[in-house]
Amino acid sequence: MASHSRNIDIDMDKDNNSYNKNNKNDILVTPWEVHGDLEDKNYVKLIEKFGTQSISQEIIEKIKKLTGEVHPLIKSQYFFSHRDLDWILNKYEKGEPFYLYTGRGPSGFIHIGHILPWLFTKYLQDKFGSKLLFQITDDEKFLYNVGITKETISNYTYENLLDIIAIGFNPKLTKIIIDTKHINHLYPIATEIARKITFSTAKAVFGFTNTTNIGMIGFPPIQAAPCFLPSIIEKVPTPVLIPAAIDQDPYWRVTRDIAEKLGFYKPAQIHSKFLPSLSRLYKMSSSKPETAILTIDEPEIVEKKVLSAFTGGQPTISLQRKLGANADICPVYWYLKYFFDDEKESFERYIKCKSGNLLCGECKSDLANHTRDFVIEFKAKREKAKDKVEEYMFD
Amino acid sequence: MASHSRNIDIDMDKDNNSYNKNNKNDILVTPWEVHGDLEDKNYVKLIEKFGTQSISQEIIEKIKKLTGEVHPLIKSQYFFSHRDLDWILNKYEKGEPFYLYTGRGPSGFIHIGHILPWLFTKYLQDKFGSKLLFQITDDEKFLYNVGITKETISNYTYENLLDIIAIGFNPKLTKIIIDTKHINHLYPIATEIARKITFSTAKAVFGFTNTTNIGMIGFPPIQAAPCFLPSIIEKVPTPVLIPAAIDQDPYWRVTRDIAEKLGFYKPAQIHSKFLPSLSRLYKMSSSKPETAILTIDEPEIVEKKVLSAFTGGQPTISLQRKLGANADICPVYWYLKYFFDDEKESFERYIKCKSGNLLCGECKSDLANHTRDFVIEFKAKREKAKDKVEEYMFD
Repeated sequence: MASHSRNIDIDMDKDNNSYNKNNKNDILVTPWEVHGDLEDKNYVKLIEKFGTQSISQEIIEKIKKLTGEVHPLIKSQYFFSHRDLDWILNKYEKGEPFYLYTGRGPSGFIHIGHILPWLFTKYLQDKFGSKLLFQITDDEKFLYNVGITKETISNYTYENLLDIIAIGFNPKLTKIIIDTKHINHLYPIATEIARKITFSTAKAVFGFTNTTNIGMIGFPPIQAAPCFLPSIIEKVPTPVLIPAAIDQDPYWRVTRDIAEKLGFYKPAQIHSKFLPSLSRLYKMSSSKPETAILTIDEPEIVEKKVLSAFTGGQPTISLQRKLGANADICPVYWYLKYFFDDEKESFERYIKCKSGNLLCGECKSDLANHTRDFVIEFKAKREKAKDKVEEYMFD
Repeated sequence: MASHSRNIDIDMDKDNNSYNKNNKNDILVTPWEVHGDLEDKNYVKLIEKFGTQSISQEIIEKIKKLTGEVHPLIKSQYFFSHRDLDWILNKYEKGEPFYLYTGRGPSGFIHIGHILPWLFTKYLQDKFGSKLLFQITDDEKFLYNVGITKETISNYTYENLLDIIAIGFNPKLTKIIIDTKHINHLYPIATEIARKITFSTAKAVFGFTNTTNIGMIGFPPIQAAPCFLPSIIEKVPTPVLIPAAIDQDPYWRVTRDIAEKLGFYKPAQIHSKFLPSLSRLYKMSSSKPETAILTIDEPEIVEKKVLSAFTGGQPTISLQRKLGANADICPVYWYLKYFFDDEKESFERYIKCKSGNLLCGECKSDLANHTRDFVIEFKAKREKAKDKVEEYMFD
């Protein structure tokens, strides 16, 4: 899994991915880089380009029927796209349980942008009683980052593991797979998958070139394998739902293409947007720690980062009072909306901001308080996670 | 390892391997197919094309000095080429022991053409006291043969395992690696190797194309990994000598190119020729069982196969008495020479054949007797091997 972790400040014109022939203002999205403006219209374009579906009112009604509620991240369209979500809900309704599967590429420390889909995944686990496979793709991060050492990846793997466990997934229903540790479970399925994918297909989907190393070319089946592992574990075809940021979609698309040939269900997905960095409307990247709130940050650092965040505000207070500010491009507003404000609070904040009745300092102060408290609490959970590592391991 | 196991009756003009731009009469050699006339002059061309070295008189003298003798398969130039054999012998002489590493791709039953390099490997183990890693590339065979099932590969793996153990390697010094079983030991090194090999290089060396599946493209590091495993096991850079047919050379060439970058010695090799089939001067293939003597064949089948072998004889007895026969293109002569005749016997047989003083029936009868006895004895060893499987396993 590569989501949320690449440095995205690359040249927008650099595009060796035939799957991503973008206009200059579109989002460039591959499993290894995300770049561009995170505006709603660009997400709509992604749905078209990737051939996924938006989450319809019918699906939202079905979720409400099955769970009694609709999660704020669906209401707010943070989870905005899917493949076969309707199918998997129908299966569930008819008594066929599904697995959840998500992951993390351990190329840095965890920031709170990573955590949002994980909290949502836990929510799904609680609501649907789903078993969860959580894959840590330490191999991919080593293969992709030619300058990185195994020791560094291993260190990030352990640190990330603590974050994953701190989320509070049900330990009876959750197994964490670390690729290099559990490769013996993944490899037999991965070879079956690999045999069905030509270089031609992989080149088109992932943008591989002559300079790509053969480890990266051979990797996608390793990330695809956990889609089919539940069927092997349960000894019966088992639906799988993958909550993840949309940059991972190429993996699932090739996986879906070959699933039925191997006798498995196509994995279903629910795709999130990217949480922007604190500096501009880019995806948050833990490789630029000054613009990301890390779970290992000390509370005073968190506050400092929030207080120096980019906002949608006007250059002066008087202008802001007069013209209002632009919540639509404001990461502070987004963080409050997705993480801390309820629907009503967020709506009121939006109206007050737009109308000039709210100054950025106030929002920053709200966010600083919330994130500081969040990080303090989360760090305590991370500490406790140190004793639970074995409990969560795949075997 | 793919040696000795591909069906070689493909169209000689089919050549998607840039490493193998052959004239029509050359041997076509890749890890997955060998085709063409097995004449000495073609092996000389292979040395030039692959950039390996012939085994010099100095090396033969060094072997004699170290072991007190020269193995018949070196004298007869069945092992005809090498990389760094002189270097590894010098290391040994100075007190630095080396590992042996060879392997088998389990795509069929074992024929006696497979066994010859293994017997030679055992000889080296006995003479040099070397530890041996023996790799069974069940993953590669599954990836390469798109029509084959895991069950079939698994069955061949077990049957081949019995043959390997029946060779009589020193169990205290020998560990057998089955890729899918021991992938957790191979994968960490394989990712280090994979990161250093671009698709461009792999394409040039192995002839991969757009239609190659990504499993095959990702595979070479798995076969390269045991070259470096000894250094990891011994916790000190450890020389490795690979006795194998020359079709495997592409693997070791890319491995040698990146070895020092990873802090390992380049693996040394000693390359064998191919044992021809009984039908024509092609490499013996167990996928054409009627032209190969299998270790599972019943003795009467062995006899029948030998008696219907192709020879270098004349159409009639009187012509043969008059003109002599052609031992140089005769698989019966070759089998006797490499397997059963000593140097003197082989020389006498050659002279008598060429001068018309030996009829093919006599040679066939000699070979039938020898092979029947060999197979009877080997089958008994295979039976005993069934109790030794665990003893030889890597872990």
